[in-house]
Amino acid sequence: MRSAWMLRQLALRPRAAVGVVGAPFSRGQPRGGVEGGPDLIRAAGLLDRLNQQGCEVKDYGNVAFEDVVVDEPIGRVKCVRAVGGANQRLSEVVQAVKRDGRTSVMLGGDHSLAIGSVHGHAAAVGGVAVVWVDAHADVNTPLSSHTGNLHGQPMSFLLHELQHEIPVLPNFSWIKPCVWAKDLVYVGLRDLDPAEHYILKLLGVKVFSMTDVDHLGVARVMEETCEYLCARVKKPIHLSYDIDAIDPSVAPATGTPVVGGLTYREGVYIAEQLSQTGLLSAVDLVEVNPLRGQTEKEVQATVGTAVDLLLACFGRLRSGNHPPGLPSETDKPK
Amino acid sequence: MRSAWMLRQLALRPRAAVGVVGAPFSRGQPRGGVEGGPDLIRAAGLLDRLNQQGCEVKDYGNVAFEDVVVDEPIGRVKCVRAVGGANQRLSEVVQAVKRDGRTSVMLGGDHSLAIGSVHGHAAAVGGVAVVWVDAHADVNTPLSSHTGNLHGQPMSFLLHELQHEIPVLPNFSWIKPCVWAKDLVYVGLRDLDPAEHYILKLLGVKVFSMTDVDHLGVARVMEETCEYLCARVKKPIHLSYDIDAIDPSVAPATGTPVVGGLTYREGVYIAEQLSQTGLLSAVDLVEVNPLRGQTEKEVQATVGTAVDLLLACFGRLRSGNHPPGLPSETDKPK
Amino acid sequence: MRSAWMLRQLALRPRAAVGVVGAPFSRGQPRGGVEGGPDLIRAAGLLDRLNQQGCEVKDYGNVAFEDVVVDEPIGRVKCVRAVGGANQRLSEVVQAVKRDGRTSVMLGGDHSLAIGSVHGHAAAVGGVAVVWVDAHADVNTPLSSHTGNLHGQPMSFLLHELQHEIPVLPNFSWIKPCVWAKDLVYVGLRDLDPAEHYILKLLGVKVFSMTDVDHLGVARVMEETCEYLCARVKKPIHLSYDIDAIDPSVAPATGTPVVGGLTYREGVYIAEQLSQTGLLSAVDLVEVNPLRGQTEKEVQATVGTAVDLLLACFGRLRSGNHPPGLPSETDKPK
Ligand SMILES: [Mn+2]
Ligand SMILES: [Mn+2]
Ligand SMILES: [Mn+2]
Ligand SMILES: [Mn+2]
Ligand SMILES: [Mn+2]
Ligand SMILES: [Mn+2]
Repeated sequence: MRSAWMLRQLALRPRAAVGVVGAPFSRGQPRGGVEGGPDLIRAAGLLDRLNQQGCEVKDYGNVAFEDVVVDEPIGRVKCVRAVGGANQRLSEVVQAVKRDGRTSVMLGGDHSLAIGSVHGHAAAVGGVAVVWVDAHADVNTPLSSHTGNLHGQPMSFLLHELQHEIPVLPNFSWIKPCVWAKDLVYVGLRDLDPAEHYILKLLGVKVFSMTDVDHLGVARVMEETCEYLCARVKKPIHLSYDIDAIDPSVAPATGTPVVGGLTYREGVYIAEQLSQTGLLSAVDLVEVNPLRGQTEKEVQATVGTAVDLLLACFGRLRSGNHPPGLPSETDKPK
Repeated sequence: MRSAWMLRQLALRPRAAVGVVGAPFSRGQPRGGVEGGPDLIRAAGLLDRLNQQGCEVKDYGNVAFEDVVVDEPIGRVKCVRAVGGANQRLSEVVQAVKRDGRTSVMLGGDHSLAIGSVHGHAAAVGGVAVVWVDAHADVNTPLSSHTGNLHGQPMSFLLHELQHEIPVLPNFSWIKPCVWAKDLVYVGLRDLDPAEHYILKLLGVKVFSMTDVDHLGVARVMEETCEYLCARVKKPIHLSYDIDAIDPSVAPATGTPVVGGLTYREGVYIAEQLSQTGLLSAVDLVEVNPLRGQTEKEVQATVGTAVDLLLACFGRLRSGNHPPGLPSETDKPK
Repeated sequence: MRSAWMLRQLALRPRAAVGVVGAPFSRGQPRGGVEGGPDLIRAAGLLDRLNQQGCEVKDYGNVAFEDVVVDEPIGRVKCVRAVGGANQRLSEVVQAVKRDGRTSVMLGGDHSLAIGSVHGHAAAVGGVAVVWVDAHADVNTPLSSHTGNLHGQPMSFLLHELQHEIPVLPNFSWIKPCVWAKDLVYVGLRDLDPAEHYILKLLGVKVFSMTDVDHLGVARVMEETCEYLCARVKKPIHLSYDIDAIDPSVAPATGTPVVGGLTYREGVYIAEQLSQTGLLSAVDLVEVNPLRGQTEKEVQATVGTAVDLLLACFGRLRSGNHPPGLPSETDKPK
């Protein structure tokens, strides 16, 4: 069943072009270790495995972030200059990836990096839709945040509708809001501040909390998500995947774990379904923190899950993948 | 987004009044340790967290149970006098809580305490409906029980329809049956004695076993439960939650764990849905036994789950809770 | 509620006749230990517990397999002579069990033993339908297999439609294909080789991968499975259960674990539903490997799961079982 003909077909088949960007940055939150995420995910074989499943992968390496020595809090908000600067740089790299015609894969680092990743994506392709898979909404404004950690605030900088709530901050002047509330879908939420809840209700953001996942099942959640995103003009999808969306029993090595998360299977299913829209244009995989695993096994489980989520984003199917050369329509699930 | 106006709204908002009753009692079963449940659940911050989510909480302390020195078995049934006496006292305290206009929260202790808790509840408010969430049906009669442990029998004392099966027992003469079979719903059953199965079929009790949860999904199970309970005269609901309903991988520190239980999410969903009926009038949380955890982590996981179940009973939503002062109808899930 | 009358009814009730066959064989794959499966499952009390739930059980002991000393690979395929010989013997024993009028329960051993088990079953009863519950499809041909391990190939020897793909192999001449592709249903697949995926698509085999389980839910998967099998002539069902179908967090002691498997509850539900068809005529429980558990607890969890799957195959219900003597129609789930 393996033949020269098949190998030729493989060569002829259009391959998904992927650009991997490492973002070893942790200043959006107080716990060290999350800057080790990108190299750990690479070491687990991400690039080889993407290649094996037919992707054409280019590694853009790790972004070199400037060291910000003096970075006094602005109000409660910590590390403003470092986060602002790092994201500006990341945005440029993501723009380069997109201009190269590749699907961007940003490996974090903490979730404040979504500012630059989404910004760069939108700057390159125009309007984007965002699917934010996370235990948290990360939509606090610099003023509503209690902790002052910027990894809990990225969406507030990105949403057009919240711009009047955003104060002037050093190194943040380059940021332009680039996502409309109607183009944002949350999946997996289970730990929201009242202010975040208020913002999401006020803006009418589509939210599938864990209660909704329990109520509807993940299959219908993804059906509704895809319908919602495709009902109007189809925009390229930016998937921002916080590993803490997955249950801590599966992916414990992360900074702010919350009980009652997505199962491994639900997490993979979400990625599979978004992959099948054909609209995935950029993916973040953030908050893998090797220092937060209590054992090597916990770290490996977390990293392994991160890799599997990314493989599912790029066409891996649990029902098996076709040998190259067969008509792709039979590839679809029944 | 926090303002004097909002704080004023908070002050004006009617707050759920809760009365917490500790019942450090373990004679309904042979394993020591379960009497440590109430203080451990308090130490995990239950009262503070209920306060934080807007409840007005009064702690009625731990019930002081009389020491029963001589307590020879009656037939196979063990510790009859101790269980009878303890429940009489518990019933009085629960009646006091209800007369104070509070939702009663009874922290066990073993599940034989449901005798006094349900009795006291019903004595104060008239007829009640019971939702019994448990791996076990706890409906053996003193004659059908093999083990003779009274924590496996409480429902038999409470059901009107079973009174002809109940022998005269010392310290049990005060008990009057107060629940009709049609007002009882079981959720989570997976380990029944044939006699219990027979009783439930004979009385036509509504049962959602784990097979039913697998078949229907927890969302439809709770939909059917709420419809069933609300189809006739709406009675105040007594939720009797045995922590062993939850899977031992989540809540291992309990005396009679059974594989194949509810997930953390299903357990919380059940509490959320019952909370939203507006009819929850008393809650038992029983069978947390710190000595049955093999590690401190297992104990903390069990206690943390117990706390989360109780918070969900009193309005905590995983989709986030409103800041005070917004119209409550927007609080409902989509 | 226990009476002489009931005991008499028990005696009168037709009992399910079960024949247990141990197959301590591991040459279909490279890892030692899986030959210890049969005795370990027996030691966990399988026979007593089947008896207690009303089965009439005969233990046919462990099959005595011939020692094959010289067994050079044929191409990539390893241990061909040992696997061929062992399965011939196993087929004869299973035929004996079926001729005795019993439901056959084959305890493996590795999954290459399905060759003899299905062959023997079909030889005794005529055509059979096969439900294959597994992380893997085990349908590689001797030529498509990369590893050369025969436990990944048994279905290719059994399917009529694949006979032209099967080369001549020593000790395999006795095998006659006995299953049609339309009579095969897979459940739980999540790790397929492209060649296997190709074969299953080409033959139109009914497959419920883990993506399908996530999409449809296990309840609808089993509904569709049973409808599919019962839509045409109802053939006796051969259930071939690989313990690696179950998630490694539940059943870790197995040779080729794959993340993202069936939950304990889904695994049991599958067995319960097949039991209720009344068509279960033979069951394999394979790939329990005590040497692959990292702790005794992991081994016991795996063995305990295996036992519970088998008990569910023979009528155990999580909603409880009737005391003997009551009309069986009330036994059915709502
Ligand atoms: Mn996040
Ligand atoms: Mn998060
Ligand atoms: Mn129980
Ligand atoms: Mn109980
Ligand atoms: Mn197998
Ligand atoms: Mn397998």
